[in-house]
Amino acid sequence: MVGALHAFADALGPDALLTSADDLRAHRDPYSFAGSDDFTASAVVLPATVEQVRAVVRIANEHRVPLWTFSQGRNNAYGGPAPRVSGSVLVSLRRMDRVLEVNQELAYALVEPGVRFFDLYEAVRSAGHRLWISVPDLGWGSVVGNALDHGWGFTPYGDHAGSQCGMEVVLANGDVLRTGMGAMSGSRAWQVYRRGFGPSPDGLFMQSNFGIVTKMGVWLMPQPECYLSGWVRVRDDADLGPLIDALRPLLLDHTIPNHPLIGGPAGANALEVAEPGRWNMRFALYGREPVVDAQFAAVRSAFSVIRGASFGGTKYAGDQAWEAGPAGDRVQAGVPGMDILELVSRRGGEHGGHLDFSPVCPLTGRDVTALCGLMRSLAERHGVAYSPGLIASPRSVVHVLPMIFDTSDEAETRRAYELYELLVTEVARAGYGLYRAHLRFMDLVAEQYDFNDHAQRRFNQTLKDALDPNGILSPGKQGIWPSLASRGGGGRPRRPEGG
Amino acid sequence: MVGALHAFADALGPDALLTSADDLRAHRDPYSFAGSDDFTASAVVLPATVEQVRAVVRIANEHRVPLWTFSQGRNNAYGGPAPRVSGSVLVSLRRMDRVLEVNQELAYALVEPGVRFFDLYEAVRSAGHRLWISVPDLGWGSVVGNALDHGWGFTPYGDHAGSQCGMEVVLANGDVLRTGMGAMSGSRAWQVYRRGFGPSPDGLFMQSNFGIVTKMGVWLMPQPECYLSGWVRVRDDADLGPLIDALRPLLLDHTIPNHPLIGGPAGANALEVAEPGRWNMRFALYGREPVVDAQFAAVRSAFSVIRGASFGGTKYAGDQAWEAGPAGDRVQAGVPGMDILELVSRRGGEHGGHLDFSPVCPLTGRDVTALCGLMRSLAERHGVAYSPGLIASPRSVVHVLPMIFDTSDEAETRRAYELYELLVTEVARAGYGLYRAHLRFMDLVAEQYDFNDHAQRRFNQTLKDALDPNGILSPGKQGIWPSLASRGGGGRPRRPEGG
Repeated sequence: MVGALHAFADALGPDALLTSADDLRAHRDPYSFAGSDDFTASAVVLPATVEQVRAVVRIANEHRVPLWTFSQGRNNAYGGPAPRVSGSVLVSLRRMDRVLEVNQELAYALVEPGVRFFDLYEAVRSAGHRLWISVPDLGWGSVVGNALDHGWGFTPYGDHAGSQCGMEVVLANGDVLRTGMGAMSGSRAWQVYRRGFGPSPDGLFMQSNFGIVTKMGVWLMPQPECYLSGWVRVRDDADLGPLIDALRPLLLDHTIPNHPLIGGPAGANALEVAEPGRWNMRFALYGREPVVDAQFAAVRSAFSVIRGASFGGTKYAGDQAWEAGPAGDRVQAGVPGMDILELVSRRGGEHGGHLDFSPVCPLTGRDVTALCGLMRSLAERHGVAYSPGLIASPRSVVHVLPMIFDTSDEAETRRAYELYELLVTEVARAGYGLYRAHLRFMDLVAEQYDFNDHAQRRFNQTLKDALDPNGILSPGKQGIWPSLASRGGGGRPRRPEGG
Repeated sequence: MVGALHAFADALGPDALLTSADDLRAHRDPYSFAGSDDFTASAVVLPATVEQVRAVVRIANEHRVPLWTFSQGRNNAYGGPAPRVSGSVLVSLRRMDRVLEVNQELAYALVEPGVRFFDLYEAVRSAGHRLWISVPDLGWGSVVGNALDHGWGFTPYGDHAGSQCGMEVVLANGDVLRTGMGAMSGSRAWQVYRRGFGPSPDGLFMQSNFGIVTKMGVWLMPQPECYLSGWVRVRDDADLGPLIDALRPLLLDHTIPNHPLIGGPAGANALEVAEPGRWNMRFALYGREPVVDAQFAAVRSAFSVIRGASFGGTKYAGDQAWEAGPAGDRVQAGVPGMDILELVSRRGGEHGGHLDFSPVCPLTGRDVTALCGLMRSLAERHGVAYSPGLIASPRSVVHVLPMIFDTSDEAETRRAYELYELLVTEVARAGYGLYRAHLRFMDLVAEQYDFNDHAQRRFNQTLKDALDPNGILSPGKQGIWPSLASRGGGGRPRRPEGG
């Protein structure tokens, strides 16, 4: 390892290598038990260019050092920047922070992985472009990293993985691949057409350890003439199913074009209203004003069938400055913020932490009611508050349950982790899989994807061994491990137990 | 080969193996030079089940026989069912023709690869579902095959590869993989959520030879309350750029939600009108009537800036029977037909054939004008009529030039092929890549994807060798060849020259 660290410092410069105890502590899972030393890196390297990423990969291969790459590492509810394998060298891409292009006419940007939502927002605004970005709840994360982890925002472009167009990837062998039309040098269509000639590997580089993404195209939304932030509240748990069933046709026919968020009385979008309902939904409409008005009337009519439902909305001009509006209105207009962190500290105290538990289910009243009922009963049995946020798409919903705890309270923290582990298997048994998972549970979650005796795992392993024979890239990510044993790899365990 | 044929017949039954000269002739490239024997198969096998597909793959591995898989093999402008390597055994999936599920509530279907657009349309209608499918110009093709080849339709779900959700794939080693949430047995979300846990391989199985897709989910569109089929005509070539630039914002903000088609005076959508313009565009609006009316007014206003443009539309109730309307109105309502074949026989005569040449370019007046100008001048120099169809998306356009010829006229046929070859390199030099290619030009087209000294080809080859070490699955498809040389493969050429 010492030889590798010298080689990193030689290749990238000494300021691009961090090894102090403080630096390593700052790169741990921030919401782990206080005092735990799980998931600790041995060093952090900070490449600033594609060539430096290639050098890092070359050195890691030469010295058989496991790397763990992150873009910003702000994904704290899932483990932050911490590596799955303790002793890994972290590859922080924070220095690769250039917005390489913003195209007003064709509504896209090309960014490096260190670009935060705040950065992209500022780049678009300061250049005077009439374009909106899509942001998740917290604006400090990486645009690229969030999309690669299948993250969500709340505009019509809120399926961030689906709004990606064109990638540049450094492979484990140091080769540089461009996907889609970028595979043709001089292509004019890299960020405007999703595919190329032949198979499309983009999905392979998401939630994976098959390469390091160094550039990504992201589709943006034209600033609308008019934006309406709407809400619906229902009074009883029994109204959740009807709410979902009234929403689905509106999403399927694009009357509501964004990704609505549905939460309980303590949820993020309910905090801003004086009298939250039992379930509260926010949604948004965008476009020419007469179209938005006609859509709003259709939405009102659809929800009026739910007894006791209340309904409203605020209309804004598209060029209005959003900084002043409530957080829910801002996030649906693609304005990055940090408001939701307040929830964590409000409920978890000074040392508040949280895990997000996020299964996917069909967007039917029947499925959502069943999943919520199952999770509520298990959460309450473990003394964990049940206050989820449901992110809706036309056919599915991602059910995010933040489990908030005080990381200085070991018993409380342990209860949250125990609940998480239990929920993984219980929701899988009911037919619901997680769309993303905390570091500590990646193997367990992958284990649930068991069709044909884990055909997916065998397939991923075949690709992993072909693309990364030394197993240097983020071993263990999403439960994908190199089969080093069969290749005479060093003493590193194939699939370490626990942390 | 004889041993392999016996084994196929033993495993699938003798009626599942075709070897007669007539049968093999019926599976050739239908628009090749009459009398040519390029791209001829040695046999056709017709598996009816996943288990039979697995048996075919097993036998091909044992006997080192190259396979070439097609779903319906109706993709005649690109080579039909014919194999890239002469002597291959065709795997026809026409017997796997079950519509496994149509879900009204969540608006999707799960189909086998032999299901044609006609079949899916009938299955949806006969069950009384209020759902629309998306169809390409010809309804005889496979729903799965078209999506796997990145085919296009003309509803909001017209990006057929993008409307896919969940696959089942038989790999070269006989393993059966399900993608996305289908990787979890008992999942309730296979056809409603696009991704799963970990990397998404779906794009890998499109335009590729990495597996045989045996099931695919396809998203459907709720039958709208109201459907408007609209048109715009402009008078001069100089108006094409302004037409494109007026269209782009309407697509980007979803005022026009479908994939409009723009054609010249002899194009498909112009044939139905009495006085076609120099360029003619059709588009469609769908939804609640007041919303459609508001959108139509916005569209009219946007195109009124083009001097001399004419504009109109026909409004239908969503439950109206479409069989009676003009072909352009039907195809935008997802009603399958065969009308466009008439164009080929009208221009090419009894033995009419055509090649489709299809580069992609950004949806700007500048790019579209440049690409059309380049292609027109080369086409006219070769005596080929220039009458393209441009399929528009919010940021890009697929420019399809049908080259129609009389296959019994060798000189005319040869001119079309020569033009195709020339155009591949000329449009690439200008920055435009093909989204799909005729069998004969797959290697040449793949050659144009040259970023970083053909990194894409190296990457595809690594995957091909890992997933299909004997190179049995559709060698040469999209320019992807197994590197048999390094693996002691038999006498089969690694990359055969010519046809």
